[in-house]
Amino acid sequence: MASHTTSHNPDELTAGHCGLRIGIDIGGTKIEAVLVAPDGTIVATDRIPARRGNDQVVEDVVSIARSVAGEHFESVLSVGIGIPGQVDCATGRIAHVVNLDIDTLELGALAGKQLGLPVHVENDVNAAAVGAAHVLAGTDMSGTIVFLNFGTGLAAGIVDNGTLLHGYSGAIGEIGHVPVDPNQFECPCGQRGCLETVCSGASVGRLWPKANPPMPGLITAAHLGDMEAQRVLAMVTHAIVDTVQMVAQAYDPKLIIFGGGMAKTGQPLIDVTLEELARREAHCPFLKGLHLADRLRLAPAAEPLGALGAAWAAASI
Amino acid sequence: MASHTTSHNPDELTAGHCGLRIGIDIGGTKIEAVLVAPDGTIVATDRIPARRGNDQVVEDVVSIARSVAGEHFESVLSVGIGIPGQVDCATGRIAHVVNLDIDTLELGALAGKQLGLPVHVENDVNAAAVGAAHVLAGTDMSGTIVFLNFGTGLAAGIVDNGTLLHGYSGAIGEIGHVPVDPNQFECPCGQRGCLETVCSGASVGRLWPKANPPMPGLITAAHLGDMEAQRVLAMVTHAIVDTVQMVAQAYDPKLIIFGGGMAKTGQPLIDVTLEELARREAHCPFLKGLHLADRLRLAPAAEPLGALGAAWAAASI
Repeated sequence: MASHTTSHNPDELTAGHCGLRIGIDIGGTKIEAVLVAPDGTIVATDRIPARRGNDQVVEDVVSIARSVAGEHFESVLSVGIGIPGQVDCATGRIAHVVNLDIDTLELGALAGKQLGLPVHVENDVNAAAVGAAHVLAGTDMSGTIVFLNFGTGLAAGIVDNGTLLHGYSGAIGEIGHVPVDPNQFECPCGQRGCLETVCSGASVGRLWPKANPPMPGLITAAHLGDMEAQRVLAMVTHAIVDTVQMVAQAYDPKLIIFGGGMAKTGQPLIDVTLEELARREAHCPFLKGLHLADRLRLAPAAEPLGALGAAWAAASI
Repeated sequence: MASHTTSHNPDELTAGHCGLRIGIDIGGTKIEAVLVAPDGTIVATDRIPARRGNDQVVEDVVSIARSVAGEHFESVLSVGIGIPGQVDCATGRIAHVVNLDIDTLELGALAGKQLGLPVHVENDVNAAAVGAAHVLAGTDMSGTIVFLNFGTGLAAGIVDNGTLLHGYSGAIGEIGHVPVDPNQFECPCGQRGCLETVCSGASVGRLWPKANPPMPGLITAAHLGDMEAQRVLAMVTHAIVDTVQMVAQAYDPKLIIFGGGMAKTGQPLIDVTLEELARREAHCPFLKGLHLADRLRLAPAAEPLGALGAAWAAASI
């Protein structure tokens, strides 16, 4: 039996709750769950360590769903799950979740059968995109919101008028493998100069191994005058603003949200991005006219965005 | 009075037509109009030379709308207009149409008042995107279709489930000014290395001034063994495939349509693009798995896409 870290908000646990949603975020090391009221309030949270293997993942999903809902389980309408790897959100089938030793798994069907509830599965970046969009845009979900996940890799989740976009082949937002970076580093995907070879958490860790997590340390070292840090930071911020311009000029979104592990750097990450953006705007009235600085947001680090977004994504199906 | 080149399809001109739409494409040298039946059939076409100046443009729009509709004018439901420059499609106001000496003009309101019909104005690339999407996708307008306009500049029009997207600030699809090209040519926008400094009709004309239009001549010269032509063609196809990857991985569209003046090159343009794409796919299973070659299309050069798309865009408002 997994060790649960459950938290309930007693003010919200009044009798007569109906229309509750469960959201579950499965990561490489932990599983987080939230119980969400119809107005978006988080009624309860739970967390357990993640275990590897098909049977274990299904078992843990069922266990955390029951525990986070507690006595309100009968009022739950749906379960949403966010998980890394390839996800067919129409069927709930997942594939190639390397960190959890999963080759293929009918996660949605198996968990749904055991729970007796509709289960909707999304890619973890997509789930976090929905969560961040709801937290930052509030009740006005009009327009397009781009969530940039600067995690191990780089990918975007796109929320359009409140609905997650999936694209024609499931490859929407795979901007990390657009080969445009002038450094032309080799990418494990086989191309050279993919954006994520410079602006992702893993890449910054490789470019600046002196700090862990690397990005805050890199920014501090650059500000203290370390010339090598300044060179690496210039390369990273160049790639970040390339990414921002690409999604801004492709989608013309209302908001561009920085998320993923690297976004935990906080305001200093936004600051170095805005400095590079301002440098480019100084030479380009077109770019300045887009007012991109006003559209950038940091994903709120304290919120369980993946679990929250999984709950919302399941609700909108 | 302008000289009209009108053509009617007598089979379509049966009595009782209702729900007709007029589409008008205003270019720098000519104005084209179509009269479209509810099923999308072009009932009549008309063409007049374009004149410069606010009054002249409004006058010509009114004149060609009346002439293309002829005796069916009373059955017309709406007029759509595509025009270069900045367009506020909510108000029909246009600005900065340099080729027509227009600073600002309330084109929609003025033409609508004189014609007594609702007039919807779109940017010309957006109108052509709608036209090309309808012609190539037929009745199945599901999914996202990206229209790449390789014209004087480079911009994309995005049609999503049959609806034209406009973005938050009207800058959607402005991918020509994403600065990613390794050649780092100066762009008139003030940046360096914008995609359109290499892959647009004007840029290819600058890079290969020996032929007019340049792209077919460049491809022929490269195939005949001219090494300078081969160098320039490699640069151009590199930027074209960068553009294709960018929109493919950002939007994951069902179709990517090559349009604009450079697309009149025809199949040889698709062929050189597919060669560069295959070179990249050989090293990258991820890219190969996107099956982009199957999604590329050439805009049909014989169709009046701008006028047709303007008619459709007005119909869907």
